[in-house]
Amino acid sequence: MNDTVKYVLDETRIPKFWYNLQADLPKPLPPVLHPGTGKPIGPDDLAPLFPMALIMQEVTTEREVEIPGPVRDVYRQWRPTPLYRARRLEKALQTPARIYYKYEGVSPAGSHKPNTAVAQAFYNKEAGVKRLITETGAGQWGSSLAFAGALFGLDVQVYMVRVSYDQKPYRRALMETYGARCIASPSNETQSGRAILAQRADHPGSLGIAISEAVEVAAQNDDAKYALGSVLNHVLLHQTVIGQESIAQMEMADDYPDVIVGCTGGGSNFAGIAFPFLGAALRGGQKIRIVAVEPAACPSLTRGTYAYDFGDTAHLTPLTKMHTLGSTFTPPGFHAGGLRYHGMAPLVSHLKELGLIEAIAYHQIGVFDAGVQFARAEGILPAPEANHAVKGAIDQALLCREEGVSRAILFNLCGHGHFDMQAYIDYFGGKLSDRGYDEKELAMALAGLPSVTEPA
Amino acid sequence: MNDTVKYVLDETRIPKFWYNLQADLPKPLPPVLHPGTGKPIGPDDLAPLFPMALIMQEVTTEREVEIPGPVRDVYRQWRPTPLYRARRLEKALQTPARIYYKYEGVSPAGSHKPNTAVAQAFYNKEAGVKRLITETGAGQWGSSLAFAGALFGLDVQVYMVRVSYDQKPYRRALMETYGARCIASPSNETQSGRAILAQRADHPGSLGIAISEAVEVAAQNDDAKYALGSVLNHVLLHQTVIGQESIAQMEMADDYPDVIVGCTGGGSNFAGIAFPFLGAALRGGQKIRIVAVEPAACPSLTRGTYAYDFGDTAHLTPLTKMHTLGSTFTPPGFHAGGLRYHGMAPLVSHLKELGLIEAIAYHQIGVFDAGVQFARAEGILPAPEANHAVKGAIDQALLCREEGVSRAILFNLCGHGHFDMQAYIDYFGGKLSDRGYDEKELAMALAGLPSVTEPA
Repeated sequence: MNDTVKYVLDETRIPKFWYNLQADLPKPLPPVLHPGTGKPIGPDDLAPLFPMALIMQEVTTEREVEIPGPVRDVYRQWRPTPLYRARRLEKALQTPARIYYKYEGVSPAGSHKPNTAVAQAFYNKEAGVKRLITETGAGQWGSSLAFAGALFGLDVQVYMVRVSYDQKPYRRALMETYGARCIASPSNETQSGRAILAQRADHPGSLGIAISEAVEVAAQNDDAKYALGSVLNHVLLHQTVIGQESIAQMEMADDYPDVIVGCTGGGSNFAGIAFPFLGAALRGGQKIRIVAVEPAACPSLTRGTYAYDFGDTAHLTPLTKMHTLGSTFTPPGFHAGGLRYHGMAPLVSHLKELGLIEAIAYHQIGVFDAGVQFARAEGILPAPEANHAVKGAIDQALLCREEGVSRAILFNLCGHGHFDMQAYIDYFGGKLSDRGYDEKELAMALAGLPSVTEPA
Repeated sequence: MNDTVKYVLDETRIPKFWYNLQADLPKPLPPVLHPGTGKPIGPDDLAPLFPMALIMQEVTTEREVEIPGPVRDVYRQWRPTPLYRARRLEKALQTPARIYYKYEGVSPAGSHKPNTAVAQAFYNKEAGVKRLITETGAGQWGSSLAFAGALFGLDVQVYMVRVSYDQKPYRRALMETYGARCIASPSNETQSGRAILAQRADHPGSLGIAISEAVEVAAQNDDAKYALGSVLNHVLLHQTVIGQESIAQMEMADDYPDVIVGCTGGGSNFAGIAFPFLGAALRGGQKIRIVAVEPAACPSLTRGTYAYDFGDTAHLTPLTKMHTLGSTFTPPGFHAGGLRYHGMAPLVSHLKELGLIEAIAYHQIGVFDAGVQFARAEGILPAPEANHAVKGAIDQALLCREEGVSRAILFNLCGHGHFDMQAYIDYFGGKLSDRGYDEKELAMALAGLPSVTEPA
């Protein structure tokens, strides 16, 4: 058995509950604040944007949240996802490390995003909502919500960050195949978009701007709600099926991770794989190193400030305490569009502050070097976002080789790159750049942080 | 249980043998002939092109051919593939039919092609071969051989039909990511290519021409062999893992197909799903209707002549008896590039002559209508080739609705369309055409058939 090994669970092993890390935190999350009053918001403040079931999931501290039957029925199409021992990669790296990866690219939309898209579509449908409005970076989230909308009979409208809209026409076509409407952001369809375009007509867009547009449309229409693909507690909650399955699969492998690696944009796939293991550690189980990998061109965890900030550029959202580069920060147009967000999930940020996770930032070209090496060894072509986790895992494995020790490294291969091949074409064509962010712009964006502090 | 159902086998159920339909044929296949002598060829005649192990598989009439351990080890990465009951599609169609599909798109390269690519790479590696030369249409085969080559340490060189090379840059990028070299065909690198370009500098290419180029290069280089992705007996043999798994999965579903549908270009995915069921029927088991679906623009089974013909345009291959449109026939540049072949697998052609299978031809736009309907119901976005099978299955299901009867329909969803999104973009943009082939060109190509008949 020298080849790559697949660990498969049968469908009875799809988790019946989402795992809520808030139940096991040594210190609770700082509250979400109203930008006008500076006071903690209540569930009703969020009601224009989300159905009440999701708002309650946002704030609950119950350890287990039951997964509704119809959501599990849809999960069954691709879950449990496989977990692999990457023996061919280990051999290529000549490392004594045991490298495992959980592969979420087997979902119809090709990433982990349907885990929450399906749940969100279900709860919105139950609440009588007709339309879901959202934003998307690379399109992994937009296409996942489009898929979920098609299943539950909801119209889906997606504001796609301009730079990705232009880089990834195939991803757009996928959303349209599922029946969704896809609009380049900033757009002329919203006040937020028009304000940005008035400043700069060729603005490349950012997730912060696209969120403003989607929130604005959702808030103004009674039949519509907003849906977010990462950052929020309930989104991270839905992703914990990944880590729960991984725990069972590591048991099948008769092993346990020493290190877990995930890429972080908003934080959801990272949370999905890490939180169930971290929760077990917090409840007295084995300690694990957990490494978040982010792009050097948008390094919220490693270079951002931990402070209250808006989730969007037009300042339509409540304030959350998180690692942020400032809500007006626009990162360069690199290919991992799913990681181009100015902030980080409050839960992930909180863990960083508590010293429960580490973070590292990589430049783009090295990340694609790692992705191509992985593809040639394992056959699966990762998404540009996932390449960050691949490089994180490879670097850990090389460290094992240097130190002459064998550790178990588990990473989340959160999606395939089939719709992102322009990035690989640019990589092979020598057109990828390691250009970082603009230091001046970062300083300005950070200077504009709201002067709100955590209530005593 | 009203949602789509997945039937999963564990890895111990990966077949240990390929099934050889030649063992159960009521009448043996006509022999392959030498174009010079008109006499049957022997194994040595094929030795410049293939390793002896594959040549022996081409001619054997043993019912079971053992799958080597290292090939099964690689299969384990994605096999057994899932079989689904398409309940959401059934509901959308309001049909009493039970629709099942076997999904081969879960392989790393995204189609059934790795089933044979891995086997061919293994046997070539065993025989000391350093380089594999091949052709590809849409790129499903080329990328699969590139994947297999990366695993076994073989260089891979792919002649890709010009029209697909231009339509599908992402597919090309995938081959390059796996480390293969991809050349647009007709090319200036071969005598066959230069001869075609001399006649018409902007020639869109055809599989027949690309085969000539690949065969020419393989025959001229001692360290290189040729690899074919369909048509030949050993290729169809390797695909029978699909049907064997499907038999076990239909048992899990406590059902048995009344109708099997597959799309046919060279015939390999169709053979893969159909032959094991057909073999069971020929050995006294339940009879099944088997429907081959081909493009109306390249209709070898429904409009071709059953005769001896060359497999390639430059007439470098032996002669096989098959349904053919003539080896110089160039179909229009429609999007299902994998179905743009002038001939049909001799085994599939033979079955058509024996009345053991049916064939039907569809135009392109209706095929994409079906594919989009399927994607919205089932979430999986099929390859343009697979859309032919999807439409075939949907039409059978609509017939059930008309007749008010429930039948079990099984089709092979042989690959996803993630690298073929330009076709969907063109579909939504109203740019797809139902233009058929040129009747005059077909008449000319058929008039050029070699005047060779089956030896008595």
